[in-house]
Amino acid sequence: MPNHSPTNSSVSRRGFAGVSLGALGTLATANVAFAAEPTTKSDEPLIKKGATVLFQGDSITDAGRDRKTAANANDASALGKGYAWLATAEVLVERPDDELKIFNRGVSGNKVYQLAERWQADCLDLKPDVLSILIGVNDIWHTVKGDYQGTIEKYEKDYRSLLERTKKALPAVKLVICEPFVLRCGAVTDKWFPEFDKYRAAAKRVAEEFRAVFVPFQEMFDRASKIAPPDRWAADGVHPSSDGAALMARWWLEAVS
Amino acid sequence: MPNHSPTNSSVSRRGFAGVSLGALGTLATANVAFAAEPTTKSDEPLIKKGATVLFQGDSITDAGRDRKTAANANDASALGKGYAWLATAEVLVERPDDELKIFNRGVSGNKVYQLAERWQADCLDLKPDVLSILIGVNDIWHTVKGDYQGTIEKYEKDYRSLLERTKKALPAVKLVICEPFVLRCGAVTDKWFPEFDKYRAAAKRVAEEFRAVFVPFQEMFDRASKIAPPDRWAADGVHPSSDGAALMARWWLEAVS
Repeated sequence: MPNHSPTNSSVSRRGFAGVSLGALGTLATANVAFAAEPTTKSDEPLIKKGATVLFQGDSITDAGRDRKTAANANDASALGKGYAWLATAEVLVERPDDELKIFNRGVSGNKVYQLAERWQADCLDLKPDVLSILIGVNDIWHTVKGDYQGTIEKYEKDYRSLLERTKKALPAVKLVICEPFVLRCGAVTDKWFPEFDKYRAAAKRVAEEFRAVFVPFQEMFDRASKIAPPDRWAADGVHPSSDGAALMARWWLEAVS
Repeated sequence: MPNHSPTNSSVSRRGFAGVSLGALGTLATANVAFAAEPTTKSDEPLIKKGATVLFQGDSITDAGRDRKTAANANDASALGKGYAWLATAEVLVERPDDELKIFNRGVSGNKVYQLAERWQADCLDLKPDVLSILIGVNDIWHTVKGDYQGTIEKYEKDYRSLLERTKKALPAVKLVICEPFVLRCGAVTDKWFPEFDKYRAAAKRVAEEFRAVFVPFQEMFDRASKIAPPDRWAADGVHPSSDGAALMARWWLEAVS
């Protein structure tokens, strides 16, 4: 174990919040673009000093955030009560002097095409340096419920279009694609499968195509379900508990490090 | 940013849950015993494969754990709902194949001398490889309330005796001393100060003397209180909320890495 002194630059430079994928590295699912960015140091954090970070997604990201304060970076009420809030709090506590500006613009109920509808105001105008997206569970859930007619093909096509548009407007943006996940409890029945696994695979394909960091939340929750029952992590199978959000924040932080 | 492939041994060997103090290294408060253990590799995790880990303390550690299942390692009900549970869940999710055995024996209301009263059954008999202790807030709180007559000197003397006894019975045990902390809200009034700061300093002295890893929770919560009001982290100033417990789990995991 190293002596973590402040002069140990190999430690202090190591990454976002100083953490690394480490044991998560065995999943080997993170893919980051370097071929196109030869000037990026190999041990540089994804979230650099002064960076603007944006969390995007559906209710899992939204988590009851206050719309009235949405314009304020790092505002606890604007960040909701989910993984986006916890990841933000943890990184701000660890990097208080790094002038990070972190926003959450998740909207409950959103499917991928609905992100596109509000993308100019809720993403491009914010000019994020790091953009994290978690989307997909409603694309299948609303279809299972009969409220929507989604397909894998539409999800993947719309996701790709959204990212192409994003990269065109913000060529330097670093992308983080979070794997859609469910717990086997609550609203999540056998009717979701094997379709749901195809949505996960599509998100991973898109992440690879855009050389995004991929956060393997399904793998994480599958493992968590061996430690405590699935409903401890998400009572309805979709929306994480505070424990589930804490796990997510940790994996998100490690993935971007 | 490194490519976190599973063949990158410098990453995968890096530590407990693969994380490091990183930005926390700027606090430079972790002290680990190596002088006496020349065979310890410098990048070896504190919690090795197959290790038994024990959390000890008061209500903050206890966090409503079920006594009936206390003998079962890694049992969600036996681990309570606080930082000890979350840190355990996070490390088990990240190291599912490492055969770790983790226990929580925190007891609400305990002061340091009360740990001693149950130390044989609740610590020494478990033969932990890693022992984490968070104790002290009741030593001052119960004194402020008039239920107890505590002093810094007694706290520090009793803490030292407890650790001497522990090291004698378990010479190879790795110690983690958590800093007692309070939030400035709820039950925590001006009457606590400056006495409380002296308890923190005593815990740190003991940690240094026994070359324990020291987890600077007060520093962490002082920073967190700049991001959200203190009562978001602990409504009564003493017992962490789920958000507070999530922060603690993260700092604990980083400190032992």
